[in-house]
Amino acid sequence: MRVINRDNAQLTRSGCVDVTRWEQFGLDSELPFKAMWYSVPPNSSSPPDQHPEVELSLVITGTANVEVGGEITQVTSGDAFVVMTDEEHTVHNNSHDGTLLIYSSYWMPVENV
Amino acid sequence: MRVINRDNAQLTRSGCVDVTRWEQFGLDSELPFKAMWYSVPPNSSSPPDQHPEVELSLVITGTANVEVGGEITQVTSGDAFVVMTDEEHTVHNNSHDGTLLIYSSYWMPVENV
Repeated sequence: MRVINRDNAQLTRSGCVDVTRWEQFGLDSELPFKAMWYSVPPNSSSPPDQHPEVELSLVITGTANVEVGGEITQVTSGDAFVVMTDEEHTVHNNSHDGTLLIYSSYWMPVENV
Repeated sequence: MRVINRDNAQLTRSGCVDVTRWEQFGLDSELPFKAMWYSVPPNSSSPPDQHPEVELSLVITGTANVEVGGEITQVTSGDAFVVMTDEEHTVHNNSHDGTLLIYSSYWMPVENV
């Protein structure tokens, strides 16, 4: 059993978003996907993102307002959202005081691997 | 973009644990793993479990006391734990009043697929 812990993990920055990439935990050979945590500060948004990988995100803390194709969908703590290949997406945190924390896993779609 | 929502989803029971299996969301062809949410009531434990799949669990709400090989490790909200092939594991919720909510994903190890 292994615990994967955010404390003291190495962060990178993407716009105002803190990203904790799981590559640093040496689990790559165990997982059939890549993973990260990212946090969006209050009143902030992630940079728009678009990639060939399918991405499954799980909201841990806060409420994500996920913008895809000009439409915004609210996803609350505990729920998940899946972004398909090449869908441009932006994650807004409309809270005035709470950080939005998300776990994300992503992989190349099976037909393109 | 698709939202995967726990509300109104179909539950199954394993001991005192409520399980929401993701098969019902019709995403099987998109995901290189299976997934579920499960919740452990206060002062309760999951039934001991053991399987060939590697299992990555993410604690959404509460604190998991994960027992493997007689050793108990605390995993707090936002953190994750990985159980390897055939490791027997039991998840205890020692809280007196809070439900423990976990997202779990699991897959056959690459060498056995």
